Amino acid sequence: MLDITKPIFVTGCSGFIASNLVDYLLSKGFIIVGYDNLSTGNMSFLKDASKNPNFTFIDSDILNLDDLVKSMQGVDFVFHLAANADVRFGTDKPDRDLKQNTIGTFNVLEAMRLNNIKKIAFSSTGSVYGEAEIIPTPENAPFPIQTSLYGASKLAGEGLLSAYAHGFDFKIWIFRFVSILGERYSHGHVFDFYKQLLKDPSKLSVLGNGKQRKSYLYVGDCIDAIMIALENTKEKVNIINLGTDEYCEVNDSIRWISEHLNLNPILSYTGTERGWIGDNPFIFLDTNKIRNLGWKPKYTIKEGIIKTLQYLENNQWLLNEK
Amino acid sequence: MLDITKPIFVTGCSGFIASNLVDYLLSKGFIIVGYDNLSTGNMSFLKDASKNPNFTFIDSDILNLDDLVKSMQGVDFVFHLAANADVRFGTDKPDRDLKQNTIGTFNVLEAMRLNNIKKIAFSSTGSVYGEAEIIPTPENAPFPIQTSLYGASKLAGEGLLSAYAHGFDFKIWIFRFVSILGERYSHGHVFDFYKQLLKDPSKLSVLGNGKQRKSYLYVGDCIDAIMIALENTKEKVNIINLGTDEYCEVNDSIRWISEHLNLNPILSYTGTERGWIGDNPFIFLDTNKIRNLGWKPKYTIKEGIIKTLQYLENNQWLLNEK
Repeated sequence: MLDITKPIFVTGCSGFIASNLVDYLLSKGFIIVGYDNLSTGNMSFLKDASKNPNFTFIDSDILNLDDLVKSMQGVDFVFHLAANADVRFGTDKPDRDLKQNTIGTFNVLEAMRLNNIKKIAFSSTGSVYGEAEIIPTPENAPFPIQTSLYGASKLAGEGLLSAYAHGFDFKIWIFRFVSILGERYSHGHVFDFYKQLLKDPSKLSVLGNGKQRKSYLYVGDCIDAIMIALENTKEKVNIINLGTDEYCEVNDSIRWISEHLNLNPILSYTGTERGWIGDNPFIFLDTNKIRNLGWKPKYTIKEGIIKTLQYLENNQWLLNEK
Repeated sequence: MLDITKPIFVTGCSGFIASNLVDYLLSKGFIIVGYDNLSTGNMSFLKDASKNPNFTFIDSDILNLDDLVKSMQGVDFVFHLAANADVRFGTDKPDRDLKQNTIGTFNVLEAMRLNNIKKIAFSSTGSVYGEAEIIPTPENAPFPIQTSLYGASKLAGEGLLSAYAHGFDFKIWIFRFVSILGERYSHGHVFDFYKQLLKDPSKLSVLGNGKQRKSYLYVGDCIDAIMIALENTKEKVNIINLGTDEYCEVNDSIRWISEHLNLNPILSYTGTERGWIGDNPFIFLDTNKIRNLGWKPKYTIKEGIIKTLQYLENNQWLLNEK
């Protein structure tokens, strides 16, 4: 599906997942045009990529349609990973998810249409299922009811991709991620907990009651899955859950983190079933579809959390940037 | 649910369905603030309303958030019916559905939030189901895949309403309409066919192969259903299909129209299963939910089509405006 002779466009290329994807694609010899406004990404994640002659970086915003259209000239495939990726805080600034996720995705699709580019992979989220009735949740779960502005904005993005597939003959891949862990991870509970414990190893404040059941996937496994899906699917519209075959409680994660750091913090909970407005007390995706394409993850959730901690231990500068 | 002492806000109030709703609510003694940019509506639909001291008209656009915020002061309930309501032509101007439906709906919700208004009814569409796998299609049908920019924009609007219900404690009613017929109907197949036959009674050009199976509902029945739903539901998020318990082929409709007009036109078909990009060859909604609330339609599809024709025969000025 990916053509080694033609540029591949990656939005949000300085972000956690996208920068890992860029490094992977460059290692395979692909030509990459990376596009990012550096609002939440980090230029240092592109240190290696920037030395590679096959990599071009464009510092601009997906809300700037003119720049997008110009930057996509000659491109054959788009990975659209630019997003506001934090499901929390949606209610603090209700227009952020709409702009950065929904309108941003529309602009990416329009820039593609105007450049006659027809293939796109999109990072969606298990949050589009809302509080799913069926767990593990398959791709064709019952019609979802959104519980967060983030989920709503990603669902809107998915809908736009599908409409472009039907209306403009695009070929699309929608990946519904669980939370991703690993190198360059720079927001989420492992980050927050590690930062708290660095500041004061004796205590840890936990959003919710600690019993939320969550799913995580290691970033390398995530990228493997995307590549396998692109190679092994032929539909016009491909929608694929990505996650491990397990979940953990937030309390499990706290225990693993504490053990790894050799700490025994006193825990305090904000006390409710949901850590924040729109938090989902149980996320667990049915991943039979991607497994049936020949993928399986190399790392468990626990291993992913430990790898993330090791990365943060070796990159403490990141904690001060956020 | 509706408070007779406090203003009710109706967006798109000069449109087909909304102007009928305004007349109904005024007849029951409600106080109405109507808001419309008159882009597709028609001021003459508000001729009676405008004489009523309980009616205030505001000529502005839902894309103007400042005007919306000011206009909603003191309002208790919002009917959000302003929209680009034509499922065809989405691919001609891809940003229209995004702006008028998705961003417009976001603005309505924001204006409500800023005015501390928490109750909203929203006109969505059976098009959000895409080409449904289950027919008749229930509200909890499998996760839909969008086939039109119109459907995608309405799904995005639904998602925003649900996110506001969860994030800001709104109470919401989402009505998924089939095509609506009746007085003030001013776009769609009956309108197009009647207009063609007025010009040349000997022939009729039909989009698609005529075998598309479609559902229709008479506007008076639609408004009855909305009122019954508002009175008889208590959930924070209420999602309700509205349609009759039948469907017809486009060819059935052509026969009824021809009989009523006493014509026998030569038919020519564009020939495909879908009349336009994003057209759905079979729309038929499961309406058990609204029926179980005590509603049933007074008119069949055929009767709705005849009533629409009679309205158009008596209001030929409308044909020249479009």
